[in-house]
Amino acid sequence: MTNLGPGRPRLEQRRRHGQTPRAEILDAAGELFTTKGYANTSTRAVADAVGLRQASLYHHFAAKDDILDALLAETVAGPLEFAQGLAAHSASAAVRLYALALFDVRQLCAARWNLGALYLLPELRTERFAAFRLRRDELRGHYEELARLVLADLGSRAVPGSEVLPFRLVETVINIRSDEGVAPEYAEQTIPEAVLRVLGAAGVVRAEAVALLESLAVARE
Amino acid sequence: MTNLGPGRPRLEQRRRHGQTPRAEILDAAGELFTTKGYANTSTRAVADAVGLRQASLYHHFAAKDDILDALLAETVAGPLEFAQGLAAHSASAAVRLYALALFDVRQLCAARWNLGALYLLPELRTERFAAFRLRRDELRGHYEELARLVLADLGSRAVPGSEVLPFRLVETVINIRSDEGVAPEYAEQTIPEAVLRVLGAAGVVRAEAVALLESLAVARE
Repeated sequence: MTNLGPGRPRLEQRRRHGQTPRAEILDAAGELFTTKGYANTSTRAVADAVGLRQASLYHHFAAKDDILDALLAETVAGPLEFAQGLAAHSASAAVRLYALALFDVRQLCAARWNLGALYLLPELRTERFAAFRLRRDELRGHYEELARLVLADLGSRAVPGSEVLPFRLVETVINIRSDEGVAPEYAEQTIPEAVLRVLGAAGVVRAEAVALLESLAVARE
Repeated sequence: MTNLGPGRPRLEQRRRHGQTPRAEILDAAGELFTTKGYANTSTRAVADAVGLRQASLYHHFAAKDDILDALLAETVAGPLEFAQGLAAHSASAAVRLYALALFDVRQLCAARWNLGALYLLPELRTERFAAFRLRRDELRGHYEELARLVLADLGSRAVPGSEVLPFRLVETVINIRSDEGVAPEYAEQTIPEAVLRVLGAAGVVRAEAVALLESLAVARE
């Protein structure tokens, strides 16, 4: 969809990341929402940042919350698809949980804008974002299911509630990026290792998890 | 400071938590900032929620960012003072780190509003909040110092960067409260235990840490 809409020429040359006007709008909105704030950003400001007329922007997104919803959807689509691919895989639960955390941490670190910082917006608790919340809950459910399997494999007496921690540890990338201004290099190893450690699983699974991640990535291409 | 300012009677009876108008303003702002959003809340809305005239509110806080700064300052003051008290204590680093995490998790769970959700506001990265950021960095520094001591005591080969995780694990209470709507009962045990586990320290220190926390709490009274 590279069409800008009838009789709506661009105000100027493209200046954003993205192959299509839609992708450029999302890139500009991602920057403005994370650096100026969602409530402080108008659709006019997004259109200006892309070099589009506001009417052209409305051709792609009817309202500001549609832009936010599209940005949020992108943050869960990849890890959710990856988690679904893992669900039936024969690797051990520890290897699968490590691979999921690694996939997710890599995406959180590589994303141009720290979109996870938007998860705590009060706007997200409204009905408008119920579908997004369900998708994110589904991803969280995959983490908790794998964590329960890891705990069951260990047969250890688990600390109550510890199955929630792997998902939350992965989310800490968002806070670290926010405070440090950049995604730290150590995150890609430190966080998946910690995901297993909080469950009391201390084995060496990284090499196997990386191989699993790569084999699934190839299968999706 | 229970004085409302000259010739400025309340519009109606007090309806907020708090012993003073200042505390009531902070309580109302805490609710509005976390449920409607900071940018979406005017000082007028805060004054209305307290039953004060806007001019009376300005007697206590000259601008909206002063209210936010005061709310944020409250979130770090307690744990920072507690961490300073721990710094010279003779208990092991693991016991002290556990006690600090427990103190902090209890406060994050008990606070009437989930104010930590405001930490990711883009506004906090401006010069106006530099002093707050320094105080929070100081608290983070206490966590990292204790974590390094725990790692040194263990003599184990630490995963690079793992000293940052205890502080980040404690912050996950904020995300859990935001998603679940309430502070979960298990957090007070699960998170301090996880703080030691991510460092590879698996010992049983809870009873000693709770005793330390209580002795320091008594000393401060």
